[in-house]
Amino acid sequence: MNREQLFEQIKLKRSFLCVGLDTDIQKIPKHLRERHDDPMFEFNRQIVDKTADLCVAYKINVAFFECEGAKGWISLEKTVKYIREKYPEQFIIADAKRGDIGNTSNLYARAFFDHMDFDAVTVAPYMGEDSIKPFMTYLDRWVIVLALTSNKGAADFQYLKNAETGEQLFETVLKTSQTWGTTDNMMYVVGATKAEKLEEIRQLVPDHFLLVPGVGAQGGSLQEVAKYGMNDMCGLLVNSSRQIIYASDGEDFAEKARNEAINVQLEMEELLLEADLL
Amino acid sequence: MNREQLFEQIKLKRSFLCVGLDTDIQKIPKHLRERHDDPMFEFNRQIVDKTADLCVAYKINVAFFECEGAKGWISLEKTVKYIREKYPEQFIIADAKRGDIGNTSNLYARAFFDHMDFDAVTVAPYMGEDSIKPFMTYLDRWVIVLALTSNKGAADFQYLKNAETGEQLFETVLKTSQTWGTTDNMMYVVGATKAEKLEEIRQLVPDHFLLVPGVGAQGGSLQEVAKYGMNDMCGLLVNSSRQIIYASDGEDFAEKARNEAINVQLEMEELLLEADLL
Repeated sequence: MNREQLFEQIKLKRSFLCVGLDTDIQKIPKHLRERHDDPMFEFNRQIVDKTADLCVAYKINVAFFECEGAKGWISLEKTVKYIREKYPEQFIIADAKRGDIGNTSNLYARAFFDHMDFDAVTVAPYMGEDSIKPFMTYLDRWVIVLALTSNKGAADFQYLKNAETGEQLFETVLKTSQTWGTTDNMMYVVGATKAEKLEEIRQLVPDHFLLVPGVGAQGGSLQEVAKYGMNDMCGLLVNSSRQIIYASDGEDFAEKARNEAINVQLEMEELLLEADLL
Repeated sequence: MNREQLFEQIKLKRSFLCVGLDTDIQKIPKHLRERHDDPMFEFNRQIVDKTADLCVAYKINVAFFECEGAKGWISLEKTVKYIREKYPEQFIIADAKRGDIGNTSNLYARAFFDHMDFDAVTVAPYMGEDSIKPFMTYLDRWVIVLALTSNKGAADFQYLKNAETGEQLFETVLKTSQTWGTTDNMMYVVGATKAEKLEEIRQLVPDHFLLVPGVGAQGGSLQEVAKYGMNDMCGLLVNSSRQIIYASDGEDFAEKARNEAINVQLEMEELLLEADLL
């Protein structure tokens, strides 16, 4: 999927919501674990069926599947295939935080883009250019580079100030890495806990899409994110995971997830209208 | 495995070799692909059987298995189980370069330490403390933090100089992260392409074990690594992958791998003797 197509979807759905599939085998409704051979897939399937008209993207947290071993990997593959076939307009993100020397990143790209059919993979920037570029050799696939994350540990290294440029590390990551790709194959992860930082970030990367976690359960404000982060193609995918997918742990979990997603979508529609994008 | 036990193995084997299982389905001998249901596992099995008396650790590059999907994951699980059962004295490293917010890193730790039986996982430090600590909650398991990598892209961010301390980023990573764990549950990845850097690094982390890739095919010198990096418990695991495992692509591949490993082991024995550690 390219950037134009993603923006088209945002306008069509009146939403820039990314639903995060943090599918925790211990948290999903009990009745799924009791009645289904593959409860993780079944959970995802029902959530997706009830939210696909309200969001433009799904972000699948790979760790939740990986910790179940080969079985989890099969649930992951099935989930991607299901979304791809039934909702081909969805942008599917592997939240995997990979990144290694060039030939190894190549293999990770193959895993997520060839073997599975993801649109994008999140990647940590510590190892630099050759760890990120392999993800950009696939047409209409994306690398989403960690710039500023929303966790406490972000403060350990991401804000360190550079002696020569005065930039903080996340700023250097944004400035340097954008020269490796284009606005059509790179996005950035920018945590929403400090929405005012988005204003500075928009000056560095005015046209890139930003994947923003940490809205909702983690405390960020959607209005602030939109105020500081939106550009003329929206430029935002705002992720919500737990608030939506764990809205209920009963038989009605998917319906309740839908209700939560509707609330977010309506707020996003408002923000898109205010920004004259609809 | 704890640090004392690892040092015992080094003295017993007269070796600090870590054999890297970068098991590329396209590079392993053709006859394995033709005759075995699980050629990746079979390749690993034969390599391990021919090298286990010459090395103290195996580093499995997870990407090579991940890019084969669930099938690859099964080969990976079988490999770890095989080594663990037949050679319980081996230190088994998942070279996975993971790292995410706390609750997600927790899941990665569960994947590699609970679901599989690895001794250690490599982790990228960009997301800070809460991305690394979950790997240290398991007794006698290790996190191996990327400090200075051996790839070209290492220059992009790892050498950036901090405005306040004058330290380079990799130095700050070493100084800060060592306060999160101990010399008994943390190691560092330090690329061998710049062996003289090891001298500076040893001043920052005198007692930690260092995992050193990039010796051999990638050009580093074992003698220099030992000269600058060895401490009184050896403190080094030096990895060699391609040079050993792809020494031949014929029926004799495991035997040829053994010959290569013998050469490295003999050189290491020499270096351990010179350092009065044997």
